[in-house]
Amino acid sequence: MTESKNTIKKLEGLGEEMVSEVKGNLSPTFTTKVRSKGNVLYDESLGYIRLGDKKEKRTFINVGQAKKFMQTVAVASKCKKFLKENSHTSIRGLFYQLKFSLGEDLEEEMFSEQEESNPLIEDLEVALNIKREDLNLNTDRKGVVAGGLVLKDKFGGREDKIDCSKQGRSGWMIPSDVDNGMEFTKIDADYVLVVEKDALWQRLNEDKFWEKENCILITPKGQASRGCRRLIRKLADQKLPVYCFTDCDAWGWYIYWAIKTGSMNLAYLGNDIATPEAKFVGVTMRDIQDYDFLKKLTIKAKEVDIKRAEEMLAYPWISRHKEWVEELKVVLETKKKIEQDALQGPRLSFVGEYLKDKIGQKKFMP
Amino acid sequence: MTESKNTIKKLEGLGEEMVSEVKGNLSPTFTTKVRSKGNVLYDESLGYIRLGDKKEKRTFINVGQAKKFMQTVAVASKCKKFLKENSHTSIRGLFYQLKFSLGEDLEEEMFSEQEESNPLIEDLEVALNIKREDLNLNTDRKGVVAGGLVLKDKFGGREDKIDCSKQGRSGWMIPSDVDNGMEFTKIDADYVLVVEKDALWQRLNEDKFWEKENCILITPKGQASRGCRRLIRKLADQKLPVYCFTDCDAWGWYIYWAIKTGSMNLAYLGNDIATPEAKFVGVTMRDIQDYDFLKKLTIKAKEVDIKRAEEMLAYPWISRHKEWVEELKVVLETKKKIEQDALQGPRLSFVGEYLKDKIGQKKFMP
Repeated sequence: MTESKNTIKKLEGLGEEMVSEVKGNLSPTFTTKVRSKGNVLYDESLGYIRLGDKKEKRTFINVGQAKKFMQTVAVASKCKKFLKENSHTSIRGLFYQLKFSLGEDLEEEMFSEQEESNPLIEDLEVALNIKREDLNLNTDRKGVVAGGLVLKDKFGGREDKIDCSKQGRSGWMIPSDVDNGMEFTKIDADYVLVVEKDALWQRLNEDKFWEKENCILITPKGQASRGCRRLIRKLADQKLPVYCFTDCDAWGWYIYWAIKTGSMNLAYLGNDIATPEAKFVGVTMRDIQDYDFLKKLTIKAKEVDIKRAEEMLAYPWISRHKEWVEELKVVLETKKKIEQDALQGPRLSFVGEYLKDKIGQKKFMP
Repeated sequence: MTESKNTIKKLEGLGEEMVSEVKGNLSPTFTTKVRSKGNVLYDESLGYIRLGDKKEKRTFINVGQAKKFMQTVAVASKCKKFLKENSHTSIRGLFYQLKFSLGEDLEEEMFSEQEESNPLIEDLEVALNIKREDLNLNTDRKGVVAGGLVLKDKFGGREDKIDCSKQGRSGWMIPSDVDNGMEFTKIDADYVLVVEKDALWQRLNEDKFWEKENCILITPKGQASRGCRRLIRKLADQKLPVYCFTDCDAWGWYIYWAIKTGSMNLAYLGNDIATPEAKFVGVTMRDIQDYDFLKKLTIKAKEVDIKRAEEMLAYPWISRHKEWVEELKVVLETKKKIEQDALQGPRLSFVGEYLKDKIGQKKFMP
């Protein structure tokens, strides 16, 4: 595939640079961006969290860096092999391949623990401006889709057509890699609705919400995986509005903001996975004013909810939205939270009525 | 659907019995089986863990039982409504429905915490000899399938044909309920292979293992959900042999034995979810004899692995198999474990070669 050819070229470029350094009697070097907190920032103009410009140079002729340098080269070499073979594995599989082929003829074991290989993969992602999925490394997959989306999935020598409107009660499971070998062949939807909990997704799927409202219905099943965030980003690139529906609590807010602005630990992927256009449809404390019954169905906020609300008020990119300041203050004052499940209180189908109502009236938070 | 009609009949039967007790000037009663440890046993002749015959009778005119009695009736009544409406929800959704409709005109809140409604659902499952899935209550879903299996999924007024051989890199996600509205329309496979980890499932799916070896490839993604166990049981009912492939460690063994014999906390469902015919294909400590490289890729067993191995040797239904006694003793002596991921050491495709080899030679543990 063209995509993997590009990545192979980048890996070869890295190797060739090192070779030319050796030929020029220089120590080979490897340069990547610093990924520690000090080099992570929220970019006002882009609307997401990204890495700064601080760089880190690793050189082979340096007692403290030699091992890490060799390990990085070993990881790059293995991934190139996976790409040439057209085979995928997990980072655990990579770890065992490294352990298998490097362990025996070296006095010191090259890789004894997986913790040693993980950051090296991130180094490569940043240095080569690619995602680990481009290196044929699968990440944990999670999340499900239903609605007007048809895909062509080229994988393992097969080609399957996936129609997300014909997946019954199950939906289509979002894979780790939604780029390489994956193509949107048809999109027929007015917007994307992201629903935190699988139980609510199933409720809406059963009521054919996506069919009636002409939307694409996604659940990340809690915190969104890399693949799920990337899929949301790609759908937003198709000019579809993205609305998020989560619990009104610490975890729900976190899920929303991670989709919208990216997250600290994946700052190096901000451009690929953040969707700053995303809007928040609910649940909010304000909803109690419009849906009176919710008052009876609030539950006590936990310590983590209170702490998170305080933290969020301290982030300038959140506190500049007066809607969020008001919302979080209500949580801090009342010490209450509301789960999206509560919208099933009056009748199971109410959750769809609520969403139709709020989306129709554009009652969003930024 | 016929299935839900049967369940409605059972729920109505329960109600009618209570009514006739009241009419006869008796206190209405509710009888279920005791589910505590003292009434859980491994049934030698059936080969799985089931409930004993100890019963528990709850009566309305009893200060200590009145509330629980009323709650049970409320749960039964809500579930009947869900069945009539042909709508599903989660137990969290049920909890909010109960809270919504019962909370206001009673001095004491009928349901303040979900922990109160959960055991009542189990009571009903046992008393009526049904599964909560039959009450239109969804449970957590997990697990994926690929291979020669075609299903008809009738759900939410739709009917979708799911072909598990055309699901690309993703596979078909196993739902909570694989009985009601779900029909196997075609099975073309020689056996079922259950693979503990999703990463390994993806590896085998990419190599088209299920196509080449004509099997149905399932991953429970760790511990098997109720739906996944039920699906395995149903495939075994179709006379397909079931082989399990897990890590050689505490968690892997637990996953296998829960599929095979059921588990303590789901003893009341033993007949529906246990697959005593299941066999264990690996990974085993003995594999080191045939696959020399594995020796280098063993890792240190954790305390939990050692403890679990000791516990398993104390279960008569495990210790009567000399193969398992030998296997567990090697773990206890060497204090080592082996992950299924290690089989990717020599080459990514080796995991498929290993499985083909062991299944072909019928190298199973009971």
